[in-house]
Amino acid sequence: MSAKIRLYVEHPLGEEQSVPLTREQAHYLFGVMRLGPGAPVALFNGRDGEWLAEVSEAGKKGGVLTCSSQTRPLRMPPDLWLLFAPIKKSRTDFIVEKAAEMGAARIIPVQTEFTNSERIRQDRLQAHAIEAAEQCGGTFVPEVGDLHKLDRMLADWPQDRQLMFCDEAEAGSALRLADGGRGLPWAILIGPEGGFSDRERARLSALPFAHVVSLGPRILRADTAAVAAMTLWQQALGDWA
Amino acid sequence: MSAKIRLYVEHPLGEEQSVPLTREQAHYLFGVMRLGPGAPVALFNGRDGEWLAEVSEAGKKGGVLTCSSQTRPLRMPPDLWLLFAPIKKSRTDFIVEKAAEMGAARIIPVQTEFTNSERIRQDRLQAHAIEAAEQCGGTFVPEVGDLHKLDRMLADWPQDRQLMFCDEAEAGSALRLADGGRGLPWAILIGPEGGFSDRERARLSALPFAHVVSLGPRILRADTAAVAAMTLWQQALGDWA
Repeated sequence: MSAKIRLYVEHPLGEEQSVPLTREQAHYLFGVMRLGPGAPVALFNGRDGEWLAEVSEAGKKGGVLTCSSQTRPLRMPPDLWLLFAPIKKSRTDFIVEKAAEMGAARIIPVQTEFTNSERIRQDRLQAHAIEAAEQCGGTFVPEVGDLHKLDRMLADWPQDRQLMFCDEAEAGSALRLADGGRGLPWAILIGPEGGFSDRERARLSALPFAHVVSLGPRILRADTAAVAAMTLWQQALGDWA
Repeated sequence: MSAKIRLYVEHPLGEEQSVPLTREQAHYLFGVMRLGPGAPVALFNGRDGEWLAEVSEAGKKGGVLTCSSQTRPLRMPPDLWLLFAPIKKSRTDFIVEKAAEMGAARIIPVQTEFTNSERIRQDRLQAHAIEAAEQCGGTFVPEVGDLHKLDRMLADWPQDRQLMFCDEAEAGSALRLADGGRGLPWAILIGPEGGFSDRERARLSALPFAHVVSLGPRILRADTAAVAAMTLWQQALGDWA
């Protein structure tokens, strides 16, 4: 019996473990997807891998699933953060979805000088990361951080974490990535639509842990740049090799 | 004087060239963007590079721009086709937009066994490719083809065109791309949400011009896979090096 529906839950998972459902989860499984007692569901919580469970109680306001066996072990992504300047709503949602699919371990919206957004809905973005993991067979869900000021993040930067910084104004090279950095923690920084300010660019370029990388001769939108940069990183230093 | 607005036109461009506007273009420039006589606009037509022009006649139903000087030469992308199985509307739009940004020369929707869509709106997809080029500073617009059956395309395949085929069920390697193929025409094929059928997979794998490439250990949505595959190709064989 294999499950077509994958559901993220917060509850611990394990053999014979009962997992209570929230009202929203019960509505989705029993109201929308019309599952009844005995129906299979794949569960993951970001810590215990993926488990096959079946519906043991189904109600309008809640229900219980019972785990039987582990179907996948937990697979952690590499230690990669994605920092990005929020853009308009649908493209910000998209960046978070793509970061979860591409295997970022943490997603951090950052406010740069040319960032338009002053606020984000962290809960909504986190829900997008969960949905991406549900859809794409992931067993890990990256944490979406609150909006941080780029300046402050750089001031408190952990010194061993390398920073891949994608700037259309710089003639960097993707190949330089291969020179080193494997096994170290990394972050990718994607700027806002208007690019970085001269001050930010100068500061970033002077950082000892920063690596300027080129994303080709065409100007990419921020959401495209995020996927392209994560691809280059995963291929050169991550778990695609 | 530099232009903030970039507009794709069909008309030839050159020194002192007058360019008549369609009703829609006149509405956009004069109604929406409120440009008046003398205002600068950057024009490109996919053949003559980018030209600085200014408004010489502005009316409700039309208008004329006059070119002054070329601001960028035509930059052709590499000879790369992107073949993809259409998925739901917003993600299909997205794939076309991203293909234009990433430098595909031609975009061809293909119908596979597990493709849900039987029809596409070619005109709407072409408009997305144009808009992406307008936004991203491109001087070339990839042609979006009509929906082709994958079987028929493969039967008529030009024998020197290499095919990069991304299949989550295959343990391919992106590195094999580096073995050769530089300077040859290429195509990237992205399957539908349900993947390829066993029959399609067997047929594709047996083709002498096909190269199976892995996009890492996580399952990617088709739109993510399209950007990731184009990134790997541009980096290994295209104009990113």
